[in-house]
Amino acid sequence: MPNPTAAMLVIGDEILSGRTRDVNLHHLAGKLTLHGIDLREARVVADVQADIVAALRDLSARYTHVFTSGGIGPTHDDITADAVAAAFEVPIGVRDDARAILEEFIAARGSEVTPARLRMARIPEGARLIENPVSAAPGFSLGNVHVMAGVPKIFEAMLDGLLATLEGGKPLLSQTLRVELPEGDIAGPLSDLAARHPGLSIGSYPYSHQGVFGANIVVRGQDGAEVSAAMVELGRLFPGATV
Amino acid sequence: MPNPTAAMLVIGDEILSGRTRDVNLHHLAGKLTLHGIDLREARVVADVQADIVAALRDLSARYTHVFTSGGIGPTHDDITADAVAAAFEVPIGVRDDARAILEEFIAARGSEVTPARLRMARIPEGARLIENPVSAAPGFSLGNVHVMAGVPKIFEAMLDGLLATLEGGKPLLSQTLRVELPEGDIAGPLSDLAARHPGLSIGSYPYSHQGVFGANIVVRGQDGAEVSAAMVELGRLFPGATV
Repeated sequence: MPNPTAAMLVIGDEILSGRTRDVNLHHLAGKLTLHGIDLREARVVADVQADIVAALRDLSARYTHVFTSGGIGPTHDDITADAVAAAFEVPIGVRDDARAILEEFIAARGSEVTPARLRMARIPEGARLIENPVSAAPGFSLGNVHVMAGVPKIFEAMLDGLLATLEGGKPLLSQTLRVELPEGDIAGPLSDLAARHPGLSIGSYPYSHQGVFGANIVVRGQDGAEVSAAMVELGRLFPGATV
Repeated sequence: MPNPTAAMLVIGDEILSGRTRDVNLHHLAGKLTLHGIDLREARVVADVQADIVAALRDLSARYTHVFTSGGIGPTHDDITADAVAAAFEVPIGVRDDARAILEEFIAARGSEVTPARLRMARIPEGARLIENPVSAAPGFSLGNVHVMAGVPKIFEAMLDGLLATLEGGKPLLSQTLRVELPEGDIAGPLSDLAARHPGLSIGSYPYSHQGVFGANIVVRGQDGAEVSAAMVELGRLFPGATV
């Protein structure tokens, strides 16, 4: 059976303006690879409801899962929950269980329950909550869309809990060979190797270090024996390379 | 006149598998903001021709510019140039001027001109070359799509040359106020402020540092006087905050 597929949707003006560097995509990509879910696409959109709705509809129709990050805080620019409700045409409002989780956390910190904070208990109808062990305000899953916070520590904690509930496939195995030759010299043999192993993904990632050109050759696949066989062939093609 | 708009398309399995962290989006975002081009969306797709073609057609129809990174090297997994040609239904082949640039660079390094290296001189018909001062192999612009390398040093060098040829708009100005209050306490006043300044984008980016919750409030806009006016109001709303 093929692995489940996924897309990520990063929501936030601050990434597109260059103010903030997204780090959640890289984290999610590594976790999904280990879990056997194939991340096929990622998008970054601004805090604009029409853009979020369009991306959600498109991605949720095409992939097994859609993971979002960003836009679920208490401020006016946090519009992700409403956009998800709009995308799936379901009502949204403050939900009692989410409200109780928030109120307990707020009370423990001696803060006040404000209308702004209660915005974080707005959950689209029919959604399942995703636990937030860092700052309480929950994420949620609606259908195949999983809505998480943008703050990396919270995103990572939510994802850990969520992934434990999602069925994975075969993890993608990967081995790397470092070759101190310019890509132009390895491209021919590598192309032949890739043609002999259609079940593998064989990539070449050039680098230059202190004036020396080289490349990391990465062999990826679900079949460990085939990955290893390709690595043995690579070792013969490029003697002196380092794993 | 409104600013030109843009999207970025990052091409590469290695980003989606978690092997490599993309850094070109953040770099491009900052440069475009300074140049007065509004980056509206970014996508990451795998080294799959159909996916690249679909994204190119969609994005190039919706934005003034599309900037791509990745997939223009000499190896079999470098398929961006062919995907661009396919997306716009133009022929592609080795072009004499690109070939001459490559051959001169290769000769100067004492390397050989291989069929793999010549792949990097494949340019879609009608494209303009983008100079590569790092490793010679050029990028190109076809219509409103600008095709650049994925290696950050090369991407950045190509972008510098390219941006000098693109008409910009008004730079997006931005000022930040750091407030040591949890977002839930600033959300109400911030929402009112945003309503009074529809011409500005006012964002709030929470942080926690050594147990203290706070937020960076970022005011963005093209009108410097209005950005400053909003900052003065913010200073009154949150005395004791630091710019």
